[in-house]
Amino acid sequence: MKMLINVPESVVPDALRGMAAAHPELAVDPDSRLVVRGDAPVAGKVALVSGGGSGHEPLHGGFVGRGMLDAACPGEIFTSPVPDQMARAAAAVDSGEGVLFVVKNYTGDVLNFDMAAELAEDEGLRVAKVLVQDDVAVTDSTFTAGRRGTGATLFVEKIAGALAEEGAPLERVEAVARQVSEASRSFGAALSPCTTPAKGSPTFDLPAGELELGIGIHGEPGRERRPMMTSGEIADFAVDAVLEDLRPDAPVLALVNGMGATPLIELYGFCAEVHRVLAERRVPVARTLVGNYVTSLDMAGASVTLCQADEELLRLWDAPVATPGLRWGL
Amino acid sequence: MKMLINVPESVVPDALRGMAAAHPELAVDPDSRLVVRGDAPVAGKVALVSGGGSGHEPLHGGFVGRGMLDAACPGEIFTSPVPDQMARAAAAVDSGEGVLFVVKNYTGDVLNFDMAAELAEDEGLRVAKVLVQDDVAVTDSTFTAGRRGTGATLFVEKIAGALAEEGAPLERVEAVARQVSEASRSFGAALSPCTTPAKGSPTFDLPAGELELGIGIHGEPGRERRPMMTSGEIADFAVDAVLEDLRPDAPVLALVNGMGATPLIELYGFCAEVHRVLAERRVPVARTLVGNYVTSLDMAGASVTLCQADEELLRLWDAPVATPGLRWGL
Repeated sequence: MKMLINVPESVVPDALRGMAAAHPELAVDPDSRLVVRGDAPVAGKVALVSGGGSGHEPLHGGFVGRGMLDAACPGEIFTSPVPDQMARAAAAVDSGEGVLFVVKNYTGDVLNFDMAAELAEDEGLRVAKVLVQDDVAVTDSTFTAGRRGTGATLFVEKIAGALAEEGAPLERVEAVARQVSEASRSFGAALSPCTTPAKGSPTFDLPAGELELGIGIHGEPGRERRPMMTSGEIADFAVDAVLEDLRPDAPVLALVNGMGATPLIELYGFCAEVHRVLAERRVPVARTLVGNYVTSLDMAGASVTLCQADEELLRLWDAPVATPGLRWGL
Repeated sequence: MKMLINVPESVVPDALRGMAAAHPELAVDPDSRLVVRGDAPVAGKVALVSGGGSGHEPLHGGFVGRGMLDAACPGEIFTSPVPDQMARAAAAVDSGEGVLFVVKNYTGDVLNFDMAAELAEDEGLRVAKVLVQDDVAVTDSTFTAGRRGTGATLFVEKIAGALAEEGAPLERVEAVARQVSEASRSFGAALSPCTTPAKGSPTFDLPAGELELGIGIHGEPGRERRPMMTSGEIADFAVDAVLEDLRPDAPVLALVNGMGATPLIELYGFCAEVHRVLAERRVPVARTLVGNYVTSLDMAGASVTLCQADEELLRLWDAPVATPGLRWGL
């Protein structure tokens, strides 16, 4: 497997050097592995900190900036960052208003963010945590007890980030982050496995004519393997899997997310099918985001995340954001 | 080769249906294959129209919106749109201030935009054209006489689009578009070929341990094939190839562009190496954009585009833009 890298050992710090070069508005430290808003700590603002294994870019480092995260802690590829790193991130961005940790539900991340919270609290910081566990494909998997955290992370970080930017207190930011997490569900399908730089070979075998339904973002096993399906059939399966678990009584935010190697033209075609299925199921769509946002290295495939959104969540979704991976004005 | 599609014949209209669903602020017509600003024609504004074969998304349809293009004409995959389609786009967006066609230098595009200009002029429109021909890899290739148009298209569309948004007259918008085009050069490398839906197999063979230097955006042959290189070696080769042709005496805009299937973490690592080489060559970098912007379906690899930018070009680059593929506020 060919990769655009120097050596497997330096993939994460090399990428952080690139982020530092491309985004002078951020404070990126490749050595301590932190991506921090350049203007942090922002006075009077609750700080949002997230992190997790690398390989899911732009998540999380690409979501650091005004209106979203204050800091991100990238771990090695598919490996949790360490508690000390998370605690340093919290200390770097806390303005005195407290810190919210946004934690994807993977065993390593959960344990390490728990320890980091204790470390930060020992230093006098107020810390709250929200767990993202939106993937309906499987309960318990290689990296997780319970549901995995995937695409909903973007919704939690964007919406809670907008609220924090407005100056809301920690309890309110935490409550809305939890509301978004609980109102979101995801389902993904892989057309190809991913290849980690360290291993250099695919994380699993997927025969030429088959796809994996319910894939995780680390190449974990999904729900089932089937002969290759059309975009429309995959949309039917994915949306129905989500709607089995989430019965929206309000319009949804929809994320049509690429796993990394699927061309945008295919993602837009898939988006058309996702919208078709939602219309057939009488689920109105308020906003749609299409692109590679919560990825799995060079995996081909896509996931669908839906979030039931009231007017307040939509207002926060629409609020300005200025990060490398997600940007818009008013 | 597995693809997230329904049938090869409907890939382009399916993607346009998805664009229509995801971007209600645009007027997207999958039947007549037009992507148009929802508020077009914008009174008092020169209109920018571009287009070309599909498979390079987000180029061009993803660059339609405030501050960039007024309309895009997507052709079939790697196939020029037709003159009638281009002339209809021009008629749809012309406010009376004239239309600038942004044309990538491929034989089909050049001929068809020429014919479209004649058609539009017959209808009383004022039409200007700018040719983008930035790829230094080869002179003359499968699809082209002269240099191919690649990443610089984004610079031309963004900067000329910002100027048009400010109300500049057609002659000035055309002159600045030409300035950007002439001040830009690109070089790309492919780690894997791309696969068109219609063919279903790779456009060329690339042995396991080799890469193609100087690749085009349709899988056209490049300059040479070599044993696999590191990210740093590719950056040295690509940047030096660009600087052989462009000797900037002002800071540059840098686009570190993915060909479609290369993960963002690798692109950022490559960005670090591109910045290293530019620093060694004493070329200051004013702005850097990293991501998949001018792609070649599922090709793995990256290209570098540099544009020598004076203060006025930087100001226009920084101006707000609101398109599906490129968005930022002030």
